[in-house]
Amino acid sequence: MPSPTAILLVSCPDQRGIVAALSSFITQHNGNIIALDQYVDNQEGVFFARMEWELAGFGCPLDDFTRCFAPVADPLHMTWRLFRSDKPHRMAVMVSKQAHCLYDILARYESGEWPAELVLVLSNHEDHRGLVERHGLPFHHIPVTAATKAAAEAQQIALLREAGVDLVVLARYMQILSPAFVDAFPMRIINIHHSFLPAFAGANPYRAAHERGVKIIGATAHYVTAALDEGPIIEQDVHRVSHRQGVDDLVRLGRDLEKIVLSRAIYWHLHHRLLVYKNRTVVFS
Amino acid sequence: MPSPTAILLVSCPDQRGIVAALSSFITQHNGNIIALDQYVDNQEGVFFARMEWELAGFGCPLDDFTRCFAPVADPLHMTWRLFRSDKPHRMAVMVSKQAHCLYDILARYESGEWPAELVLVLSNHEDHRGLVERHGLPFHHIPVTAATKAAAEAQQIALLREAGVDLVVLARYMQILSPAFVDAFPMRIINIHHSFLPAFAGANPYRAAHERGVKIIGATAHYVTAALDEGPIIEQDVHRVSHRQGVDDLVRLGRDLEKIVLSRAIYWHLHHRLLVYKNRTVVFS
Amino acid sequence: MPSPTAILLVSCPDQRGIVAALSSFITQHNGNIIALDQYVDNQEGVFFARMEWELAGFGCPLDDFTRCFAPVADPLHMTWRLFRSDKPHRMAVMVSKQAHCLYDILARYESGEWPAELVLVLSNHEDHRGLVERHGLPFHHIPVTAATKAAAEAQQIALLREAGVDLVVLARYMQILSPAFVDAFPMRIINIHHSFLPAFAGANPYRAAHERGVKIIGATAHYVTAALDEGPIIEQDVHRVSHRQGVDDLVRLGRDLEKIVLSRAIYWHLHHRLLVYKNRTVVFS
Amino acid sequence: MPSPTAILLVSCPDQRGIVAALSSFITQHNGNIIALDQYVDNQEGVFFARMEWELAGFGCPLDDFTRCFAPVADPLHMTWRLFRSDKPHRMAVMVSKQAHCLYDILARYESGEWPAELVLVLSNHEDHRGLVERHGLPFHHIPVTAATKAAAEAQQIALLREAGVDLVVLARYMQILSPAFVDAFPMRIINIHHSFLPAFAGANPYRAAHERGVKIIGATAHYVTAALDEGPIIEQDVHRVSHRQGVDDLVRLGRDLEKIVLSRAIYWHLHHRLLVYKNRTVVFS
Repeated sequence: MPSPTAILLVSCPDQRGIVAALSSFITQHNGNIIALDQYVDNQEGVFFARMEWELAGFGCPLDDFTRCFAPVADPLHMTWRLFRSDKPHRMAVMVSKQAHCLYDILARYESGEWPAELVLVLSNHEDHRGLVERHGLPFHHIPVTAATKAAAEAQQIALLREAGVDLVVLARYMQILSPAFVDAFPMRIINIHHSFLPAFAGANPYRAAHERGVKIIGATAHYVTAALDEGPIIEQDVHRVSHRQGVDDLVRLGRDLEKIVLSRAIYWHLHHRLLVYKNRTVVFS
Repeated sequence: MPSPTAILLVSCPDQRGIVAALSSFITQHNGNIIALDQYVDNQEGVFFARMEWELAGFGCPLDDFTRCFAPVADPLHMTWRLFRSDKPHRMAVMVSKQAHCLYDILARYESGEWPAELVLVLSNHEDHRGLVERHGLPFHHIPVTAATKAAAEAQQIALLREAGVDLVVLARYMQILSPAFVDAFPMRIINIHHSFLPAFAGANPYRAAHERGVKIIGATAHYVTAALDEGPIIEQDVHRVSHRQGVDDLVRLGRDLEKIVLSRAIYWHLHHRLLVYKNRTVVFS
Repeated sequence: MPSPTAILLVSCPDQRGIVAALSSFITQHNGNIIALDQYVDNQEGVFFARMEWELAGFGCPLDDFTRCFAPVADPLHMTWRLFRSDKPHRMAVMVSKQAHCLYDILARYESGEWPAELVLVLSNHEDHRGLVERHGLPFHHIPVTAATKAAAEAQQIALLREAGVDLVVLARYMQILSPAFVDAFPMRIINIHHSFLPAFAGANPYRAAHERGVKIIGATAHYVTAALDEGPIIEQDVHRVSHRQGVDDLVRLGRDLEKIVLSRAIYWHLHHRLLVYKNRTVVFS
Repeated sequence: MPSPTAILLVSCPDQRGIVAALSSFITQHNGNIIALDQYVDNQEGVFFARMEWELAGFGCPLDDFTRCFAPVADPLHMTWRLFRSDKPHRMAVMVSKQAHCLYDILARYESGEWPAELVLVLSNHEDHRGLVERHGLPFHHIPVTAATKAAAEAQQIALLREAGVDLVVLARYMQILSPAFVDAFPMRIINIHHSFLPAFAGANPYRAAHERGVKIIGATAHYVTAALDEGPIIEQDVHRVSHRQGVDDLVRLGRDLEKIVLSRAIYWHLHHRLLVYKNRTVVFS
């Protein structure tokens, strides 16, 4: 059982001495840094860092962190977020008819692979109630039609908020979320798209990939933004195919890609290893 | 030194007995089949095959093959092409300023890796004359501007025809060929595009890939058709990148992808392992 | 629901006319070939084929196939095996404490992804009884110690035979099977080894990989033979790592490799796409 | 043309405040850090860093660096090496009969891709004199037999020392270097081995890979140590194969792997991105 840590994600305009300032700050408060990753986008002139230190013995109480950290953060114009490793994420899954990502998430969750509480599953279909409830988790069936979409989303958002959800995973949820929904969980909704984005955005990507005759298929996990399939990419992976694979084969091989790529993105998000900047991600993997 | 072979590429509507008919035909003419690859696109109902047999002892002279083969080909409505392994391709390379693919092609050619005669190099710049002539190969500098493009292409086509070229390799040739040029060498022009098509077609794909924040870059070798970057894909490969790679890094890493992917496509074309159907390739690799 | 098919796996000394003989045989009995894959190992002079045809209308009853096929098989000295697509495999899983492969297999089974009956799960530990029984499947806990190994294996073999099992999947089963056990299911036991064989055979491969400082880890699915980790390799895949990944990270990343590689091997076995020759596999994927 | 930089590679026992001390040191001397990569091996308790800063305006003359840096380095028990980006490596290549890696190195060198002077090529065969001399580079043919090996190595070492070589690249040099040779260039000899080490160390790895029936082949670039094929691995990459590829195909496909993997290792070495620790490499790629 690792001892609890604090994780700080930082970005600011690049300049001399930032790393020294950050690490001195922790050292001066008697913190023991166990990980420090930093990256400078020289083209944009932006500095990014992830710093993790042990809470034991750290001299600034975390609920007073804003005040402690101000002498470092303010002059450097830092944007920052602070997390504690002993406060797990509260995660929800949204799913439609295809279950391979849901199965994979449930297996990882049950195995204790992730620092997260899986608090509920939402679906626009009834199909996977048994699967979810078998794991002792709440399942909510909220049908979505063009006519009922706004009301359905309001109900979804209410359930997610009530449950204190801070990460929504779209595990092959085949509905497009409205901008209002997306705004309610900014950079807190991860989707898996079944293509190598930006190729084959939108519907039926495996069919489109087959028609284009690609020799490699892919899957893409990304944060959801208002623009469909255009949010910041977190992770991608690919699988070689040939003329011998029909659309059905691509769908079958793609399922494995999708669940693995999605799980990597979730892992990094849960471990606070992702920063977003200019619609791109910095991944401290 | 392998003994000379004949290679037959066939496609026809799928039906019972095609493979039997093909292999019986060779056997009856005393041919020794050393490779037989076939593929049926069940969705489209089309049969494809590549058959290779030793010329020694084969009972039908190849210049009379059309007549010999008619009893098989005609009732099955076959489209076919016949090649001899001892009649190497005549290949030309077109290049602009970037030389990495040209270097790679020259090295393979000089090493005798390919069953081909490299007969000339065309460029819209003077830069690589020394490199090409050092290998004892003719280099033609034909500048291309918007005003002179038609005349330049006429000159290029004349040179290619005069040299008996049957494969044109665009080794990072940064000009768009007119439909008339493409029509002069149908499915005989191979281009390397520096992205994972259909993502990032057109100009500056590495810049576009960096801006989109992809986690994997790619390169695509394809036959050139009148529609830019939309011809049948022959081969693709990819390389993992991260936020740490700037555009310059993508360009650098991409160079290696480009030259390897292009060389695989050339290899298959030279060995008559490619059939094109509905803007897709069948690769008997 | 596809109509039932017969699948024939054949190997024999290479010679002229084999494909013609095979396809003529099916055609003469009014069979409709839907897939014919063949391969010749020119070095060894051996011919391999997989032929699949629709049972509907086929003129030779399958229980009389040996007699029908003899005029083809005998003069060509064929070794062959015949399967029907409508007679699914009977599969058993053996597992120890690690459950990721078991979860993945259960999810695929429940989703109907595989043409197989999963008939029982054996384990040398009690841990996963709940997981297995939740899927309505029999779970047998058979502890294995050095002293009880022979008896335990006898009990395992009896259970497998009684259940008519024809494929045993070792889903991270951490016991070495005796030659007697292996002989009872020749080329019918698939193991997943958590390294890129032949590197890091035996125990603790991720620790060994980390100590050797490899930049890529792998997993290997293979048929089990009497020689530990030396059976014919069915499938392998890899994942890039760096100095940043400790042993625990390799174990975590490896789990995803293991379950995917194992599932591909099972898929091919269940679809009769594997032939074994000289401790190597021919995979008609 | 980027402005000249200093590059510092550091390792020391891990403790609090190292990064702060390093970056403060540069900042206090008016240096502008343009890259800082650090890594802590928590298991071993060792800290590693690579720091790069602009020389312009840096307050400590580099020929006095040891003295300037002592107040930081000494109390932290640092091992360090300092390089300047404007002082390119002096590189030699050793090659036998296979030329694909040599071609690739010459092309990159001629294209100015690497911050290095290629000062000479040594070979135990005469074959590639023309190729090397065509590039205006010295070529030395030093035959090696069991009887003459010691004398040949003495001659090689003399030539390398005389030319001020600080990186020796074995570009498919098929002779084993003696421990004395290796000791003369510690962690300054990079070899490309044509297998996915530790699998298939030693001679004929492609033949061995084919016999074992692997589904993926690889290549490995590593620093040469006295133990054959056991030095610290710098880079590896792989290529998928199938039963259809014979030994000749593996050799052909492997050539492309070898040259690309070798060039990545050279690139990192030339940019001072490699540290070695416990027979493993830290790659700040």
